[in-house]
Amino acid sequence: MRHRIQHTPETEIQSRLKRLQPLLEKASLDGAFFHYKIDYFYLSGTMQDAFLYVRPAEEPILFVRRELERARRESPLKTIVPIKTFKDIKPFIGRMKRVGLQLDVIPYTMVLKFKEILGDVTLVDSSPLTQQLRKYKSPFEISVLEHAAAISNKVYDEIPNFLKEGLREIELGGMLENYAKSLGHEGLLRVRSLNYEAYTWHILSGRTGSIVSQSDSPMGGLGLSPAFPVGASMKKMKRGEPILVDFGISYHGYHVDQTRMYAIGCMPDLFVKACEVCRDIQYKVLDKALQGMRTADLFAYSKQLAEDAGFGENYLGYGHHKVNFLAHGIGLELAEFPFIAKTHDYPLEPGMTLAIEPKMVFPKIGSCGIENTVLLEHGSFRILTNRDEQITVL
Amino acid sequence: MRHRIQHTPETEIQSRLKRLQPLLEKASLDGAFFHYKIDYFYLSGTMQDAFLYVRPAEEPILFVRRELERARRESPLKTIVPIKTFKDIKPFIGRMKRVGLQLDVIPYTMVLKFKEILGDVTLVDSSPLTQQLRKYKSPFEISVLEHAAAISNKVYDEIPNFLKEGLREIELGGMLENYAKSLGHEGLLRVRSLNYEAYTWHILSGRTGSIVSQSDSPMGGLGLSPAFPVGASMKKMKRGEPILVDFGISYHGYHVDQTRMYAIGCMPDLFVKACEVCRDIQYKVLDKALQGMRTADLFAYSKQLAEDAGFGENYLGYGHHKVNFLAHGIGLELAEFPFIAKTHDYPLEPGMTLAIEPKMVFPKIGSCGIENTVLLEHGSFRILTNRDEQITVL
Repeated sequence: MRHRIQHTPETEIQSRLKRLQPLLEKASLDGAFFHYKIDYFYLSGTMQDAFLYVRPAEEPILFVRRELERARRESPLKTIVPIKTFKDIKPFIGRMKRVGLQLDVIPYTMVLKFKEILGDVTLVDSSPLTQQLRKYKSPFEISVLEHAAAISNKVYDEIPNFLKEGLREIELGGMLENYAKSLGHEGLLRVRSLNYEAYTWHILSGRTGSIVSQSDSPMGGLGLSPAFPVGASMKKMKRGEPILVDFGISYHGYHVDQTRMYAIGCMPDLFVKACEVCRDIQYKVLDKALQGMRTADLFAYSKQLAEDAGFGENYLGYGHHKVNFLAHGIGLELAEFPFIAKTHDYPLEPGMTLAIEPKMVFPKIGSCGIENTVLLEHGSFRILTNRDEQITVL
Repeated sequence: MRHRIQHTPETEIQSRLKRLQPLLEKASLDGAFFHYKIDYFYLSGTMQDAFLYVRPAEEPILFVRRELERARRESPLKTIVPIKTFKDIKPFIGRMKRVGLQLDVIPYTMVLKFKEILGDVTLVDSSPLTQQLRKYKSPFEISVLEHAAAISNKVYDEIPNFLKEGLREIELGGMLENYAKSLGHEGLLRVRSLNYEAYTWHILSGRTGSIVSQSDSPMGGLGLSPAFPVGASMKKMKRGEPILVDFGISYHGYHVDQTRMYAIGCMPDLFVKACEVCRDIQYKVLDKALQGMRTADLFAYSKQLAEDAGFGENYLGYGHHKVNFLAHGIGLELAEFPFIAKTHDYPLEPGMTLAIEPKMVFPKIGSCGIENTVLLEHGSFRILTNRDEQITVL
């Protein structure tokens, strides 16, 4: 598995900008700034500290604070201008009335400072524009996602070589992190949130699989302390417990997400049955998605399937801890559009990637399920995290 | 090294709130909300998804979205109220004129939504209040920092067992992460920034030690891709190169930061000499800090020491890539107040913790230096990351 540092091709960046510019026009924006690194990386090819300025009909300008030479090497954009503070942008911008700024993520104080520079303008959130574009993955993006998925598959394949009775959840997490890094996993997962951090090693065994935490997930895990209350813990893994292994891999900024089940000695029948139902839900929902069923309906349909199979109480969490999504889009962010969720109502389309994760939680006993990163194509779907889906019993 | 999940003691939380309340009064605030998890953890003991509401003379209220029972177990606060969305806060808050909200970190859109709930109020940034308190570490916090430092020391001690010719920087990073996690390292480092992520394994060998990136650091490293342009890379480590190993450890949410130098076979004389100068600067600056020299002067003094030793061009970076800080406070955030920096001017006081990091960069050749997490006491300082400071040559 060869690691090669790849730059985003110029044709790729040009095509993204060409799709963005009509959206600016449609939103009656004189220009838009992108300063959240996920989005300006998407539009420029660099994550150096920068502000990207895009107008409906002119060349975009990338203002770079640090580090200029690296930004110039990485980005195919023609106009790359060094700045010291964002005040230095002023001479480059004309008079504007409606300006896009990423108001969903940029802190209040920073927006006010920026407004001072822009003068009397109407600010509009520019994030929905890139979020709209990023829903559809290009062949280049799909090739990067395939590489990330290949890393993920290899790490799951390696688990039987590490897992043994008495090993702590976090110890297994460390071993997998070590192996994943050697394959090019970038270690940090990115989420669009002030307080939520994505932590990569959710290894939950037996009862820790039924512990809920601050995250919007059916199960959170015990974690290592109140300051780190998610994911793998110091708990030792035992024979006969369901062991849920859920992690994200990042490669060249693109994420895949996958979950598989393991057990030492034996897996309790309840979990074997529940896992089968989860797999069944996954495939039935994907089939309906291809047939054009909208996301809110897909979510309701999946709940019905769980209920029909006798797992309504356990599906996606228990009691008031249930979550209201089955799948999240995935790409430069671990969770992005589209979502298969109660409150999201649209059709799924070719080019979209989803992490679909039907899971069951059994209070005080544990949890189980499956997760795959899936690409929707014309008339079919392709599971990128395409390794064996069966429970591995050691 | 025993890992025990510790809750913040009630006396500790009470004393923090007691120090906060007069600050609210001084700022003429009717109340203040803390919704950035680092700060409400400091004041409540939990990082479950919450809003903390503090008033000058009344009991604080912790509003919890998820997960209530866990927040109740972790936080000694008496009034913990479940909410579904932050609109549910409304019945609990009286009429207010001046309200604190963490405007430095909370996104613009969220502040506007919050303002709708609060009605016609003047918003004031409440973050400086907790930042002021958090500068001074309590004996409880120091004990947690000592534990983090003990993990860090053990990981550095282990490096000679892993490092060998031909090993890739990122492979060493993975091995150290694996070992650190087994000792209780929490894996993610926390920084107060929209775009800057703290990545824990800065393993820079030879020329990668002179590569600059988007981060405000004398050296950034090559990283793994344009989407992850910092820290360890796929470069293989060679004999005779300076190998800089810089990482942060997090334990129960508290960070320590440390740097040590390694080489395989031999370390070039230039780097041996430069390392000696860095150590000398570290101790001379700490001595002057004890004597009451202010931070801006300490920074200038350190530059003078580097120049006098003939390393003025290399100190804290080269050319226009030089950075303007020598030390950052450290605790619940990897970088917090106080700073020994060009633009920070105040005395250092007992109870403060600092990561002091004199470093030298030699273009295209590499970098070197030292970093320690240090506690200032009455009339003395104590290096928490107190392991051998010499270069390790394997």
